Amino acid sequence: MSISVRRPGENDPQVQTTESAQTRPLLTEIDHIAIAVPDLGEAIDYYRETFGAVVDHREVVDSDGVEEALLKVAESYVQLLTPTRDDSTVAKWLEKRGGPGIHHVGYRVTSCAEALDAVKAQGFRVLDEQPRRGSRGTTVAFIHPKDALGTLIELVEE
Amino acid sequence: MSISVRRPGENDPQVQTTESAQTRPLLTEIDHIAIAVPDLGEAIDYYRETFGAVVDHREVVDSDGVEEALLKVAESYVQLLTPTRDDSTVAKWLEKRGGPGIHHVGYRVTSCAEALDAVKAQGFRVLDEQPRRGSRGTTVAFIHPKDALGTLIELVEE
Repeated sequence: MSISVRRPGENDPQVQTTESAQTRPLLTEIDHIAIAVPDLGEAIDYYRETFGAVVDHREVVDSDGVEEALLKVAESYVQLLTPTRDDSTVAKWLEKRGGPGIHHVGYRVTSCAEALDAVKAQGFRVLDEQPRRGSRGTTVAFIHPKDALGTLIELVEE
Repeated sequence: MSISVRRPGENDPQVQTTESAQTRPLLTEIDHIAIAVPDLGEAIDYYRETFGAVVDHREVVDSDGVEEALLKVAESYVQLLTPTRDDSTVAKWLEKRGGPGIHHVGYRVTSCAEALDAVKAQGFRVLDEQPRRGSRGTTVAFIHPKDALGTLIELVEE
C-alpha cells in the first residue's frame, strides 16, 4: 500500500487492507459535475446560449446555503451552484479561489450508506459520517478531498 | 446580456447576440471528469480499492506530455491524468496547485467542429482553434476556462 494519504493502520501488520479492498463496482454513473459560480443566472445563460443546455431542476438547499440549477446531459447533470449566504462553504470557496470553477464531482451509487462504509473501511476521512438528504430527493454524503486525490466527492443515491 | 466575460460586440446595438444563441442541445454526455495526479499507479489503486473501479483504457499522449488511465462509469469515464515530463501543462498545474485535484471536464458532442464553432460564435476564446486528435481515437478541442465559468472544458467527439 503506497497511497500518500492518511491511512490508519497501514503500518499495522494486524490490518490486512488488501482484504478490505472493494471488488464490486460501486459507481454507477457520474451523477454530476458541480461548478460553483457567483451569479446563477449568468451561468445558466452561458450554458443555454453556448451549448443549448437548459435547466431541468432548480432548488435552494437551505442547509448548505446554496441554490443550484441542474442541466441534464444524458443520465448526468451539470450542476451550477451559487451561495445564498456569506457563511456558506461555497461562498468561502469562491472567495478563496477568486472566481468560478469546478467545485466537486458527484458519483451515483446504488446505496449511499454502502459506499460511505466502503470509504471508511479504507480508513479515509468523510465529511458526512452518515448519509443525509440532498437536492431533488437524493441521499448523499461527501467524502474528504484530502483522502481522495484532492477531489471533493459526493456520493449520490437517487 | 450580463455574462461577466469578454464578449466582443456586446455593447454594439448592431450585434444581436440572442440570434446566435444555441437552440439545439450540443452536449450528449459527460464524457469524462479529469483528475490530475502526481502518481498514476496510486490513483488507480485508490479508485480500485475504494470503489471497485478498474482501468478500461490506458494511453500515453506524447503531444500533451501526459499519461492517462480511463475508468469506465456507465457511458462516462473518470480520467486519471499524470504528467510524463516537467514541461507538460499538467505538471505545471500540479505544481501550482500543490497536489492532485479536478483538472477539467470533458463534454461529449456529436461534432467537435460544430461545438467549437458554437463557442467561437458566442465570442469566447478557445485553446484549440481547430479540432485535433485526442486519446482513444477521439477528436477534441479545449476551450478557454476564463470564458467558461472558470472551467477548463474539453469537447470530445468519439
